[in-house]
Amino acid sequence: MAVVLPFEPNEPSIEALVGLVKADMDRVNAAILARTGSDVAMIPEVANHLISSGGKRLRPMLTLACAALSGYEGDGHVKLAASVEFMHTATLLHDDVVDESDMRRGKLAARKLWGNEASVLVGDFLLGQAFRMMVEVGSLTCLDILSNAACVIAEGEVMQLSAAKNTETTEDDYLAVIRGKTAELFAAACEVGAVLGQRPKAEQSACRSYGMNLGIAFQLVDDALDYGGSQAKLGKNVGDDFREGKLTLPVILAFRRGDQAERAFWQKCLEKGEADATDLDRAIGLLAKHRAIVDTVERARHYGAIAKDALALFPASKAKDALMEAVDFSLSRAH
Amino acid sequence: MAVVLPFEPNEPSIEALVGLVKADMDRVNAAILARTGSDVAMIPEVANHLISSGGKRLRPMLTLACAALSGYEGDGHVKLAASVEFMHTATLLHDDVVDESDMRRGKLAARKLWGNEASVLVGDFLLGQAFRMMVEVGSLTCLDILSNAACVIAEGEVMQLSAAKNTETTEDDYLAVIRGKTAELFAAACEVGAVLGQRPKAEQSACRSYGMNLGIAFQLVDDALDYGGSQAKLGKNVGDDFREGKLTLPVILAFRRGDQAERAFWQKCLEKGEADATDLDRAIGLLAKHRAIVDTVERARHYGAIAKDALALFPASKAKDALMEAVDFSLSRAH
Repeated sequence: MAVVLPFEPNEPSIEALVGLVKADMDRVNAAILARTGSDVAMIPEVANHLISSGGKRLRPMLTLACAALSGYEGDGHVKLAASVEFMHTATLLHDDVVDESDMRRGKLAARKLWGNEASVLVGDFLLGQAFRMMVEVGSLTCLDILSNAACVIAEGEVMQLSAAKNTETTEDDYLAVIRGKTAELFAAACEVGAVLGQRPKAEQSACRSYGMNLGIAFQLVDDALDYGGSQAKLGKNVGDDFREGKLTLPVILAFRRGDQAERAFWQKCLEKGEADATDLDRAIGLLAKHRAIVDTVERARHYGAIAKDALALFPASKAKDALMEAVDFSLSRAH
Repeated sequence: MAVVLPFEPNEPSIEALVGLVKADMDRVNAAILARTGSDVAMIPEVANHLISSGGKRLRPMLTLACAALSGYEGDGHVKLAASVEFMHTATLLHDDVVDESDMRRGKLAARKLWGNEASVLVGDFLLGQAFRMMVEVGSLTCLDILSNAACVIAEGEVMQLSAAKNTETTEDDYLAVIRGKTAELFAAACEVGAVLGQRPKAEQSACRSYGMNLGIAFQLVDDALDYGGSQAKLGKNVGDDFREGKLTLPVILAFRRGDQAERAFWQKCLEKGEADATDLDRAIGLLAKHRAIVDTVERARHYGAIAKDALALFPASKAKDALMEAVDFSLSRAH
């Protein structure tokens, strides 16, 4: 008699990571809740709208897991993990204003409910709180890493602005954008965990490299999903990048591999912003024709492999296993 | 024979302060220029548009002067002063998006030239650079003061959002707003100067109190000028606050002192946003009738007096004289 399995047993999962950091994450979540508090009522309202909307909190989990990997036994990782999540949340609030997004994590974007003003200012407040928590931890090295990340993230976002609507963007240009806007915070989140553990420089660098490459892989899979994932999985609409004229890797590949007529189509849609209702379907057709989604995921696998190799110098441990599987999980989202 | 004097010799001036910190300010300006640098060309473009547009740089001068007042002989005050100016610049860039301003310091606002996106992101970059410089100085106490200020500033701005277009705003509500959005950074700028000098806590608090009360006075005079200064002096248009529906102290006083019909007028203009071309003149007339501008400046004098008394525990010095005169100068802008 055939048994219907409720899940695919070999499917990589984030559960090992979630389980590893469970107790610490409860404390991180408590810190997040406490630090969005303010006498100014609009601040917790706006912040919690986004924070409670079920992000995976992958970044703070990485800080906690890298602290565990490094044998850290103190308390600072909880506040640093909360800082990392606040930096991420601030970026999302500001991104929504920059992208004029209507949706975020399957809910109306804060800017649609409270206006651009509130998104900008509550983002600034969270960034300030992130730095306050870092200061409380008291590690100047961690402060250096995370304040540097704040600059690099903003640089990546500005680069993305300049690249938007520009079909001349190369794969290398694009990689520079996502290293900044996404991967740098993954890298910093991992690095500070190892710094707290006072590991040798080589191990700190290994954690940073793991985070950087995982972050690149993660963003590339996101970009692929934007043209083919389900809305539920994405928490935004399929084709958002297309409508916003974002030159992501799938488009960069299809543009380069296409003929004159196809390039004119991409230019019409993305540079001139003249896409009509049927153009998203045509775009998805062209991406399939040129294997642009498949190859974007292939590129993601490449960075995923680098991330896993970066951890090779650590001996076997539950933390290492969980971090390795987190890479596979990130890649598997593409299926 | 009568002599025509080219200036009023007893007019208080900012020149003593400017002279006191001249050599240090050259280094601050060099740091500011260096730290707006980025391979991403849009960042220095946007940042320098605002930075080079001739703000007085009062806040960094206060940091330098309070360091001098405290006998500090190190190097950290230069980077902290540049950090303070970057925090201020980031706030201005974000404010322009929040207020939908067209003008800033007599030039087109950055958001009009490069878009809201660039103003948000370059503001974030400058905030990141501010924290990087603070980290380089390495004083956790100063980091604590300035990261706390970043939160309080954002809170003040959000409070202002909630108070905007609301004629029920009291004078106390309004004071809470300007303590946050303006005076906190003045206070922090002064306090970190004294912290660097490792002065006793009482002197650090005195510098903080000086900055806080000077900041309140400064903002109140600004609010008065918005209804009567010259455009050249303001760097923005007379009546901007009125058009944006901002409840500043002059309006709060006139509203409370007015009759039913006058209150209905303020509500129409500020709450419903239905002011027409002649309404600014009527508003200015009502402010005059109720002595609202005169009394706003009177309130500013009150805070200015507290600022000066705060410095009483310091012995006479050039730095003290310059700081005392800076208060009188700030008040004299109202004439």
